[in-house]
Amino acid sequence: MAHLNDNFLKLSANYLFSEVSKKANAFRAVHPEAELISMGIGDVTLPLSPSVVKALHDATDEMANAATFRGYGPEHGYMFLREKIVNVWMKPRGVEIDPDEIFISDGAKSDIGNMGDIFADDTKIAIADPVYPVYIDSTVMFGRSGNMGEDGKWDGIIYMPCLPENGFMPQFPKERADIIILCYPNNPTGTTLTKAQLKEWVDYARENESIIIYDTAYEAFVKDPETPRSIYEVEGAKEVAIEIHTFSKTAGFTGMRCGYTIVPKALKARNAKGELISLNGLWNRRQTTKFNGTAYIIQKAAEATLTEQGMKECNEMIDYYMRNAKLLKEAITEKGLEAYGGKNAPYIWVKTPRNLTSWEFFDEVLADTHIICTPGIGFGPAGEGFVRFTAFGTYENTLKAIDRIKKWDVKL
Amino acid sequence: MAHLNDNFLKLSANYLFSEVSKKANAFRAVHPEAELISMGIGDVTLPLSPSVVKALHDATDEMANAATFRGYGPEHGYMFLREKIVNVWMKPRGVEIDPDEIFISDGAKSDIGNMGDIFADDTKIAIADPVYPVYIDSTVMFGRSGNMGEDGKWDGIIYMPCLPENGFMPQFPKERADIIILCYPNNPTGTTLTKAQLKEWVDYARENESIIIYDTAYEAFVKDPETPRSIYEVEGAKEVAIEIHTFSKTAGFTGMRCGYTIVPKALKARNAKGELISLNGLWNRRQTTKFNGTAYIIQKAAEATLTEQGMKECNEMIDYYMRNAKLLKEAITEKGLEAYGGKNAPYIWVKTPRNLTSWEFFDEVLADTHIICTPGIGFGPAGEGFVRFTAFGTYENTLKAIDRIKKWDVKL
Repeated sequence: MAHLNDNFLKLSANYLFSEVSKKANAFRAVHPEAELISMGIGDVTLPLSPSVVKALHDATDEMANAATFRGYGPEHGYMFLREKIVNVWMKPRGVEIDPDEIFISDGAKSDIGNMGDIFADDTKIAIADPVYPVYIDSTVMFGRSGNMGEDGKWDGIIYMPCLPENGFMPQFPKERADIIILCYPNNPTGTTLTKAQLKEWVDYARENESIIIYDTAYEAFVKDPETPRSIYEVEGAKEVAIEIHTFSKTAGFTGMRCGYTIVPKALKARNAKGELISLNGLWNRRQTTKFNGTAYIIQKAAEATLTEQGMKECNEMIDYYMRNAKLLKEAITEKGLEAYGGKNAPYIWVKTPRNLTSWEFFDEVLADTHIICTPGIGFGPAGEGFVRFTAFGTYENTLKAIDRIKKWDVKL
Repeated sequence: MAHLNDNFLKLSANYLFSEVSKKANAFRAVHPEAELISMGIGDVTLPLSPSVVKALHDATDEMANAATFRGYGPEHGYMFLREKIVNVWMKPRGVEIDPDEIFISDGAKSDIGNMGDIFADDTKIAIADPVYPVYIDSTVMFGRSGNMGEDGKWDGIIYMPCLPENGFMPQFPKERADIIILCYPNNPTGTTLTKAQLKEWVDYARENESIIIYDTAYEAFVKDPETPRSIYEVEGAKEVAIEIHTFSKTAGFTGMRCGYTIVPKALKARNAKGELISLNGLWNRRQTTKFNGTAYIIQKAAEATLTEQGMKECNEMIDYYMRNAKLLKEAITEKGLEAYGGKNAPYIWVKTPRNLTSWEFFDEVLADTHIICTPGIGFGPAGEGFVRFTAFGTYENTLKAIDRIKKWDVKL
């Protein structure tokens, strides 16, 4: 009989957010009258913006007509979208990226999960902890995690804890890592790095010949001009960093599936002989072999978010969610709970009171307020003792949640 | 410095169809007056059908409205689409599949490329040769191919040649394989297996504890009632087979990116301890971790192809392409060339005259008729000495191509 990839069996059967939704359903079964408010998964609630809707209708009409119909597109993504990203997003930030360094994807999750394909089996990974669970889970699947210890840590992964004590700035690892995973504005803590802090990481990667995978899914929420929205705003980053973008949060595209990843031509890794090889060609070979591009109509919709009007509409969405974040954080803080984030990011990271575990506090929040949050432990060991609240709900639901929080008799 | 996956370097830098298009562009540069007709890549040309267009417009309007907007969907795919597949496609063929055994994807290519994730590193692959290049290329990337020999074969892959001599029915491999890859109706040869022949393979897999990956991308082109459209029409197949479907060819969705893969719960593989584990859960874990589902509007479009009217429209498309196939095959055969397929499949597989190699004849066809075909060698060693013509062109272009073929002074 064929043998399976045993690394999969090291993982729990369920992905974090499936676990959360199971718990919520179990609660609903016992309390059918409870009106639960989901502040768990970071899923947007505002509808697609008018520019995007128009682009979808127009592109659909193109697909309905033989003269303008499009079949297979370039696996790399359509040039109209890649050029728009270069001209509208990159250039105004002083970032010089070639369209051939941009790979349009069906969302950041796929690229994060698949990026490991192009690296050697024994690649050593360092992860800013806590982090979006796909980074750890896919590392386990690739057989690069070692085994889970009693401390809840994979013994083959280097964890870089981000805690209030260090201002959520990860410390340089003692052991050298081949790949360093950073996500800023951070999911789940909602914290950011300044350009100076990010420069320290770029310099560190250059000195240590490490590659940074920089996840900037939440860049659109950055309002502070000191906070970089792309790692390439830091000089020298193109030789050490892959950057992952998504339209999911920027343009409310969670149900649309479109993102992009930048693999600069200057970024290299060693082959078995020790020679330096550009990773751009490798990722291109990966994508042209195992991916067939994103639907034309979806790429046209993504392009619409980068027009002047489209960007205006996106910014209004961002402002809407950031108003939620601000009000939510204030309410939580007023309760005497310790809360982080919510300033340049749509997440509020809350310390559990009374040294409760993440799941214990998750249960308490659910029981007391009928609000579903996400247990921090789901994002890694340094997330233990925290829960995450998202600002992606509707304004009405956020007000309702705040009202419940205000009335909440939380035991500190 | 990080090390890369050296298996990637074993592959030529370019995917087959990129090579073909490079050659065509070089020809265009020298002969700017030539009007090339592409019968190379199997890309559809008919626009989306009215039912699909309506579904896209309607779903877009849903996404434009807060009350009906959809964010993240189930990674598995929406139940409305999975149930439609079960009720409209599977049940009428006597196939009992549970909706939870169906995984909606962004196209067959992704699933074919990624399926190897869930198997052990030393998995032995047997491939019906020639075959869609993604099967071989992804096997190489996974490090399961060994090295390329002077005969153009990877020494770690078991090739099962499909040639006129054996009626394009692969012979059982002498050495046991963990995974057996079969594609029928076949791309590129355009040939099919009868139910009795397919049953031999299911029985063989059961006896040898092998898993069949059955690619049925072209099932919609089957008109012969003796020819199975799903491997699950054969009894006992659910314990040994994964089946890959796509809407690309069935509904002209190449630019839309939607397919589905069936991983039955009864299908098992062994873990390191030798215990049998269901692969359905493993593929579910893979997809929930490294994939985030297909866009809602695309899934609504796919659903529309399975309504009564949608199926009628799809069948009209299929008939349109099959008329091309019939005429094209007649014209090629009348020239004295040896041609296969084109009956229950949209491809014509043509033996090169005068023992020319695939690329030599590709060049000759291009120079003499200005038609772009695909060199058979691109599909594997047993494809050497053949070229593939596709019937997916427009009727007008197909007639034009036939006219050129009729006037062609082909040297036999």
